[in-house]
Amino acid sequence: MDTILKENERLDELHRNGYWIIQNPEKFCFGMDAVLLSGFAKVKAGECAVDLGTGTGIIPILLEAKTEGKHFTGLEIQAESADMARRSAAINHLEAKIDIVEGDIKEASSLLGAGKFDVVTSNPPYMTASHGLTNAGEAKKIARHEILCTLEDVIREGARLLRPGGRFYMVHRPFRLAEIISLMVACHVEPKRMRLVYPYADREPNMVLLEGLRGGRPRMTVEKPLIVYREPGKYTDEIYDIYGY
Amino acid sequence: MDTILKENERLDELHRNGYWIIQNPEKFCFGMDAVLLSGFAKVKAGECAVDLGTGTGIIPILLEAKTEGKHFTGLEIQAESADMARRSAAINHLEAKIDIVEGDIKEASSLLGAGKFDVVTSNPPYMTASHGLTNAGEAKKIARHEILCTLEDVIREGARLLRPGGRFYMVHRPFRLAEIISLMVACHVEPKRMRLVYPYADREPNMVLLEGLRGGRPRMTVEKPLIVYREPGKYTDEIYDIYGY
Repeated sequence: MDTILKENERLDELHRNGYWIIQNPEKFCFGMDAVLLSGFAKVKAGECAVDLGTGTGIIPILLEAKTEGKHFTGLEIQAESADMARRSAAINHLEAKIDIVEGDIKEASSLLGAGKFDVVTSNPPYMTASHGLTNAGEAKKIARHEILCTLEDVIREGARLLRPGGRFYMVHRPFRLAEIISLMVACHVEPKRMRLVYPYADREPNMVLLEGLRGGRPRMTVEKPLIVYREPGKYTDEIYDIYGY
Repeated sequence: MDTILKENERLDELHRNGYWIIQNPEKFCFGMDAVLLSGFAKVKAGECAVDLGTGTGIIPILLEAKTEGKHFTGLEIQAESADMARRSAAINHLEAKIDIVEGDIKEASSLLGAGKFDVVTSNPPYMTASHGLTNAGEAKKIARHEILCTLEDVIREGARLLRPGGRFYMVHRPFRLAEIISLMVACHVEPKRMRLVYPYADREPNMVLLEGLRGGRPRMTVEKPLIVYREPGKYTDEIYDIYGY
């Protein structure tokens, strides 16, 4: 395996289908948000999904492992991340089922085809370009801040990629919730299902999972809370299930 | 006291300042949603608040008891409810602080004055005119279904009543959340604070409390869950606190 890894990269186990992922801990490693999104998103048998801003490809790889979807595309603007994602797909023998495309979210629908997908997923940068601490290192900065694309770009292009009746899944921070919902409604991707992720049962949520339906009519379900920790350092059973431990 | 009550009316204790409220159990009695809204809304010293669709006046009466607000207006389209609200204000000697106006939410800003209020509250009908079981009895039906006004009317008129920087507080059902948020954003009442009310910690929420800021910038706080029952028939401490028991 060693020859497939570049400097500072490591191979991490995913606890799903014996799959692995290549990561560079000095650049960006996937977080719980990507794992929770892969547990929240539904890809049905025969469906095609695309992940916007796929980074090292964690979401297509997990969705391929967890669902009966036919094909998974990951779009990533950073060449180095896209290359890692492509090598991870190869390590897991998923070249036929996962395509990694290097390109810009702002042009996603012209690159990949408007109306061509059943499912869009995204774990986009959470912070506006202007707020929060910017992380040291360009790769992390681009992954976490809206430097190369905004929330509006992600939702607008996601909506364009979907066939009518297609589903959009996003994980984000609750402080952006009003923006997310109003942009989804404006792009005719009606929010239909939402789940808030609370670190502890008596704390503010720190993540939100959303499902939108292209062309859907208003009426949504807010699901029961997803609680991460039972006690410090100890996940709840639901989190262990989602991780596949 | 008996002479102030009409047929089938009763006088209920509010556990706040020794206040009472007149209700007719055959028509409509206030629910936990109104009480939770009065605990969620903030009216600061010297501020003026208006409640859209005030029914029997529960929200102005509770807010007068709980806050340092200067004046409270309740707008109600049903003559019989408005009359009960007015008599409840009188029983509590609040004629100088609470005005009950009989009128239509759709015309609220022209009736009461655009930009004249620091705070707007509303516990509007939850159901669209077309969905859900319609309740027997016209008064209940109007209180629970969007027969005489829609969610859009409430939010549009609420926004118009507020001064720039004024606050809008609403309680509603989570299944309407995307509509509420997108309408608030469209009316320039930016959602700033949200709390979901869960009957039990492991169930779907059945109420949502929202605070919007007229002319505010995007960025909201989603608060920790508000759990109603510790076990069947037994409220959590927070609910007892809000009720004032």
